[in-house]
Amino acid sequence: MKPNLRLIVKLLGLLLSLNAIFMLFSIPVAIIYGEDYLPIAYSALITLSIGFPVLLFSRKKQSSKELKRRDGYLVVTLGWIVMSLSGTLPYIMGGSIPDFTNAFFETMSGYTTTGSTILSDIEALPKSILFWRSLTQWIGGMGIIVLAVAILPLLGIGGMQLFMAESPGITPDKFKPRIKDAAKRLWLIYFGLTLTEIILLFFGGMNLYDAITHSLTTMASGGFSPKQASIGFYTSPFIQYVIIFFMILAGTNFTLIYFFLKGRLGKLFSNEELKFYIVTIIVFTAIGTLSLVPEFSNFEESFRSVLFTVVSILTTTGYTVVDYMQWNSFLVILILALMFVGGSAGSTAGGVKVIRHVILFKNSFLEMKRLLHPSAIIPVRINDKAVAQDITYNVIGFIMIYFLSFALGTLIMGLLGTDFMTSIGAVAATLGNVGPGIGDVGPSSNYGHLPLASKWFLSFLMLIGRLELFTVLILFTPYFWRKQ
Amino acid sequence: MKPNLRLIVKLLGLLLSLNAIFMLFSIPVAIIYGEDYLPIAYSALITLSIGFPVLLFSRKKQSSKELKRRDGYLVVTLGWIVMSLSGTLPYIMGGSIPDFTNAFFETMSGYTTTGSTILSDIEALPKSILFWRSLTQWIGGMGIIVLAVAILPLLGIGGMQLFMAESPGITPDKFKPRIKDAAKRLWLIYFGLTLTEIILLFFGGMNLYDAITHSLTTMASGGFSPKQASIGFYTSPFIQYVIIFFMILAGTNFTLIYFFLKGRLGKLFSNEELKFYIVTIIVFTAIGTLSLVPEFSNFEESFRSVLFTVVSILTTTGYTVVDYMQWNSFLVILILALMFVGGSAGSTAGGVKVIRHVILFKNSFLEMKRLLHPSAIIPVRINDKAVAQDITYNVIGFIMIYFLSFALGTLIMGLLGTDFMTSIGAVAATLGNVGPGIGDVGPSSNYGHLPLASKWFLSFLMLIGRLELFTVLILFTPYFWRKQ
Repeated sequence: MKPNLRLIVKLLGLLLSLNAIFMLFSIPVAIIYGEDYLPIAYSALITLSIGFPVLLFSRKKQSSKELKRRDGYLVVTLGWIVMSLSGTLPYIMGGSIPDFTNAFFETMSGYTTTGSTILSDIEALPKSILFWRSLTQWIGGMGIIVLAVAILPLLGIGGMQLFMAESPGITPDKFKPRIKDAAKRLWLIYFGLTLTEIILLFFGGMNLYDAITHSLTTMASGGFSPKQASIGFYTSPFIQYVIIFFMILAGTNFTLIYFFLKGRLGKLFSNEELKFYIVTIIVFTAIGTLSLVPEFSNFEESFRSVLFTVVSILTTTGYTVVDYMQWNSFLVILILALMFVGGSAGSTAGGVKVIRHVILFKNSFLEMKRLLHPSAIIPVRINDKAVAQDITYNVIGFIMIYFLSFALGTLIMGLLGTDFMTSIGAVAATLGNVGPGIGDVGPSSNYGHLPLASKWFLSFLMLIGRLELFTVLILFTPYFWRKQ
Repeated sequence: MKPNLRLIVKLLGLLLSLNAIFMLFSIPVAIIYGEDYLPIAYSALITLSIGFPVLLFSRKKQSSKELKRRDGYLVVTLGWIVMSLSGTLPYIMGGSIPDFTNAFFETMSGYTTTGSTILSDIEALPKSILFWRSLTQWIGGMGIIVLAVAILPLLGIGGMQLFMAESPGITPDKFKPRIKDAAKRLWLIYFGLTLTEIILLFFGGMNLYDAITHSLTTMASGGFSPKQASIGFYTSPFIQYVIIFFMILAGTNFTLIYFFLKGRLGKLFSNEELKFYIVTIIVFTAIGTLSLVPEFSNFEESFRSVLFTVVSILTTTGYTVVDYMQWNSFLVILILALMFVGGSAGSTAGGVKVIRHVILFKNSFLEMKRLLHPSAIIPVRINDKAVAQDITYNVIGFIMIYFLSFALGTLIMGLLGTDFMTSIGAVAATLGNVGPGIGDVGPSSNYGHLPLASKWFLSFLMLIGRLELFTVLILFTPYFWRKQ
């Protein structure tokens, strides 16, 4: 079976055309702040002039063909790459980030909602370009929602079927209209929450530009900030608590937020992932705050800084209010550990995801029960339902490949000349789509000083991390390309 | 079902009695070097006076009762603890290591063939005590062989059944006599190889005492050396190559060595674990040597140092010829990665074991094939035979718990006040039964400076690492203590 090339190309054309339209949003920003809007306009034009003909050219056979599973992996991976390639144009055309490698790293960090940056002086960039930078993350977040709700479950990516099972009664038959409904519903929530955050931040004292750009990147679990000091720039506790609240929402399964809005609170209370997600925040914040007590003069400030950092790292947003590398080494290890947890499935957060850890823990624990009862079949239970064996094993396979990627990635970074701690931090932070890492890529630093090859490699890690590993890695297996 | 307490206590009594006899071997060493032999004699006496009555007291019902699976976990774990407790006596009685925590750490490091030490001036200790120190590792190695060949496969510990499948035709019926034969055969190989190494090292220029103590700890994959500089003390390339060769043998499945001695070479060539084990040594040595080329004046010396270190860490022996912390950061990461590989199943090496990695890699890779063929059942194949699903999943469960233990262990070490790199290194090196770690527990340092609680915690990690995790951890689950 050959991949359905015509349909894949058509979808890529559609993505490029949409991206061109998104670019146009930066033009009014440029005009308001008296900046040169031509680079952005040219970028949109170039993107559209490639995307639109492709879209038109392959339009004809639309209804006669359907996307197969194999095509799915290809189109998702290529989609993110094509978006990232075209998204570099506003940076390059205006000279904000003249180097292609740097521009690609920054754009991939945007669409994957990672938030790692190569910029050493963020505020030196035009406001319209920084708006575009925030927008790439918001677009990426939209992409993640479709991915989670509509594509990954079909592709069989570990644990995503499980999240689907939470959606009301989707069966293969009535799949398509339901999926469309689900995606629309979740986009509406995404849009509504972004708007609410803008309003709250504005009333909290941010100017409108800052409120918008930060809300775009909060809800995407992205973490790009137009401020060099990130959220540390704003000393208002209100602003910080608002952002903490919306980061937590961004890392929550959006289907659960939908249930909440519909008043179906029972669904929330019975959800194990939500429970573990909240417990993780509470436990890590409590331990972290306690470890800081001797160092801080103000308890509330200490608590808030730790809570902010824990939520920011756990939800893979990556905003910072303090340079956590200045904290004690225990807290640094704690933060590194958090990078491997990730938010909830069905949210915009990256990383391994809480539900997978829950399955892993339960299964490892049950493995010992199985040793004592060798002939019994003992499945993992989530939300009081037995999880199918193949899903459990797919989840475990996912986590294994995640840690293998981390280990191998750290080795490769070392080989490319980066020191031990920075290698660990950079790989954990990009693979998990967190943003800032530890060591020389911590909050007070950036990724700009890394060697060229490392930047490409980390961009690759952002991509595979964001697309739940298998989607991309499967393309490198012989099975994918073998004729069936 | 209650644990068969009488039989368990009897076996512990037997172990203590044997340990007392082993202690006697240090007395002639003390006499030869004119050292005080009374502390050792007293230690043996105390150990025997506890062990022997217990053995006698519970002798009666021997034939009427059998060891059940549950009892197996308990007796193995308690066995190693009881050995370690009694093994501290020679250190404490003679005042060589007066502190109980330190003595316990050193003894547990011995019986688990880890090789981590709290001693900052090894050569200050009496030769008879250092002989005892080496002997604890050799005894531990003997224990590991029985464990691998007779006990772990019965307890269902992941991957160990697989190793059993390599032994010629063992079926549950004719299990017992076969097991006894197998254990005897492998002990003979263990003993024979130790003797051969003693002879080679002696002719290579070591004095007899050094040749014996080093051979005892090489074949056990232990790594205790009576020299402060470890094998770095001996500049003779011959001695270093001999030790490299025997470390490789100690990390090889002993059943394969038996097949080799019987001339059945086909068994060796078709063995995938052996293949991957050798390839790992070659690849890591090649990469490591290349990375050192600019730093060394002498190529052969550079190659030899890297080969020695790679083999020493991979086989979890832990001898050193150079302080690898002085090497470039890439090599340090490489060494850390090696700590997670481990030797072969059925050898005296600790760690995850090569075969488990092979199964993990193959299974992760196949997970993508399974995504493309959702309805097909695709088993992992080792040595051209399909591996049963439950064994594969048990192996994966093992690796997961291994990495969880590592992550949690690092966090706990951080909590106890140890810096990031040292925490990682200490946990990786003790859990994997390697010996020296990285950071402040690297080759030029030791574990003596760690806080008291850390030493107990690391002793626990050595124990669970050596007993293939499940054996010990299962005792902490409610399943184990629940009535059936």
